[in-house]
Amino acid sequence: MGPGPCNPYPEVIEAYARPVLGHLDPDFIALMDEVNDRLRRVFQTANQLTFAVSGTGSAGMEAAFVNFVGPGDTVVVGVNGVFGQRMCDVAARCGAEVVRIDHEWGRPVDPERVLNAHPNPKLIAVVHAETSTGVRSDLDVLGANKGDALLLADCVTSLGGIDVQIDAWGVDIAYSGTQKCLGVPPGLAPLTVSERALGHLRPVPQSWYLDLNMIAKYVTGDGARAYHHTAPISMVYALHAGLGALLDEGLEASHARHADVGLALQRGLADLGLELFAAEGYRLPQLTTVYAPDGVPEAEVRAELLRDYGVEIGGGLGELAGKGWRIGLMGHTARQRNVAALLGALAAIFG
Amino acid sequence: MGPGPCNPYPEVIEAYARPVLGHLDPDFIALMDEVNDRLRRVFQTANQLTFAVSGTGSAGMEAAFVNFVGPGDTVVVGVNGVFGQRMCDVAARCGAEVVRIDHEWGRPVDPERVLNAHPNPKLIAVVHAETSTGVRSDLDVLGANKGDALLLADCVTSLGGIDVQIDAWGVDIAYSGTQKCLGVPPGLAPLTVSERALGHLRPVPQSWYLDLNMIAKYVTGDGARAYHHTAPISMVYALHAGLGALLDEGLEASHARHADVGLALQRGLADLGLELFAAEGYRLPQLTTVYAPDGVPEAEVRAELLRDYGVEIGGGLGELAGKGWRIGLMGHTARQRNVAALLGALAAIFG
Repeated sequence: MGPGPCNPYPEVIEAYARPVLGHLDPDFIALMDEVNDRLRRVFQTANQLTFAVSGTGSAGMEAAFVNFVGPGDTVVVGVNGVFGQRMCDVAARCGAEVVRIDHEWGRPVDPERVLNAHPNPKLIAVVHAETSTGVRSDLDVLGANKGDALLLADCVTSLGGIDVQIDAWGVDIAYSGTQKCLGVPPGLAPLTVSERALGHLRPVPQSWYLDLNMIAKYVTGDGARAYHHTAPISMVYALHAGLGALLDEGLEASHARHADVGLALQRGLADLGLELFAAEGYRLPQLTTVYAPDGVPEAEVRAELLRDYGVEIGGGLGELAGKGWRIGLMGHTARQRNVAALLGALAAIFG
Repeated sequence: MGPGPCNPYPEVIEAYARPVLGHLDPDFIALMDEVNDRLRRVFQTANQLTFAVSGTGSAGMEAAFVNFVGPGDTVVVGVNGVFGQRMCDVAARCGAEVVRIDHEWGRPVDPERVLNAHPNPKLIAVVHAETSTGVRSDLDVLGANKGDALLLADCVTSLGGIDVQIDAWGVDIAYSGTQKCLGVPPGLAPLTVSERALGHLRPVPQSWYLDLNMIAKYVTGDGARAYHHTAPISMVYALHAGLGALLDEGLEASHARHADVGLALQRGLADLGLELFAAEGYRLPQLTTVYAPDGVPEAEVRAELLRDYGVEIGGGLGELAGKGWRIGLMGHTARQRNVAALLGALAAIFG
């Protein structure tokens, strides 16, 4: 119940035992195609270039910037937590002129401020669900008013847990991670890129490993696939199984389950007298931020939870560092039994 | 029996079922430390900064260049196959002046030519075991005469299969992959960096994801670890188990097993009248390159092997493309039973 990784779905662990095929084996290519189809359904997109980057969520972030942003390009980043800050760092390493629009941590990004930050940016970047603060920032207003800019969204913690509508919201580039609401261990970064964004693809990005020009020839297409790098075969099996579990349950049902358990946890914490950190109306069900009671050493509580109750929760970041916790209810971990176990343990500890 | 991925050791598949801990969980940190210790034994190095990069072998290559090479730096690359070429591409994307010393494919890199290529390069890079040609290039002469240059070696296909002596040979930076002679599915890139090389670490490499300044604070150190990116937990379990299997067998015993099966395969292919591609004296036991018989369509043989015999082998690359095969005997796949199965199938197909 930390801020990710979640516990994986049982089907995912079974999938790791599948025989390791070669990365050009026709049966593996067919399975990868199925993964990409499933990702399109979860991202709610028709984007052809939709696949899993061979790295964790931060590799997805880097792939999202390095292929579209170069020296002198203006990038506007709406920052309201650690991952927005990280976007600024990644964009700056691409040589971009970064226009950083800071927001109070715990509050959502204000689309008007971001849209008015620069008359003609190359790219606008926002974190959909900030893992550092437990806050959702809405993307639809940004997408509807982005103009010539590309809209880039970090969906690491949102995908599978709350609604993510890439096409309807006008998001051009989005990435996620497997270890949050997809219910798979960390190791891959689902990425989707619109046709419009492909028109802005840099011919030779500074990263070879994340070069979408070359990767696209392996992960998509009707004919023979060109080898780029060796795909992480077993991780792709795991993602295939996790997406299968998610889609068997249904996207809406999964969102509803996350919403239910998140609300139950947040009500339960309030009943224990604790104060929630994230702004009301923008709280993520899958990631709850909460202040520790006054005078309670938060790190000791976490250690006690782990040692005596077998429950992991995360420490706070930023303003919440040393003062509170981040509690994940993601993927297979998003169960009422886990809410009950944690609330029971906290009641025992505080009692 | 392709050029990687190999079949994983059974212990590796079992390890995937371990509970997914958080990346800052003390039990996970302890396990990661053990992985790093095991990697030091396999690399035969005392380098403190020895760990697994969160990506496949090519991410290891990119990490090896991007942290040490920047605009204007001279990089000498000894090229005798696909992966030497890739090094040139990666180094050029870092802004380096690349001095490319081409060799005939199928022959080893000539240390004298590489050492004489430039009076004062920042870095000299060579592939220890070329997966595209099945050739070993010796590193000791390069290490002994590198002068002020850093010596970088690609050990993707060599590590675990033939002797790799990072410290004794004077290699400063080396990376590998899990899916070759370590007997683990693809997904991680073991990397080791000498103290000397750390003195040349770029303060802000162009890649955030592969920035060793930040990663080092997570993967090494005695005290609390700083979060950089979420480690691919289950893949680290898998590598831990694969290294355990390798070290239980013993490095020398593993090398001897690879040597035995490689020799048996190469003799068996010669007995079938086939001509080996790689230069004698430099043939890798773990990766055999061989011409198809005259007039035999190599792709059809591969398809027949896969369909009728359940055996995967790889097609040739470069001069060998369309004319021959690359046959892997790596990690758990390096067994006499596999040699017998393939030779039997080839005899049946050619007969």
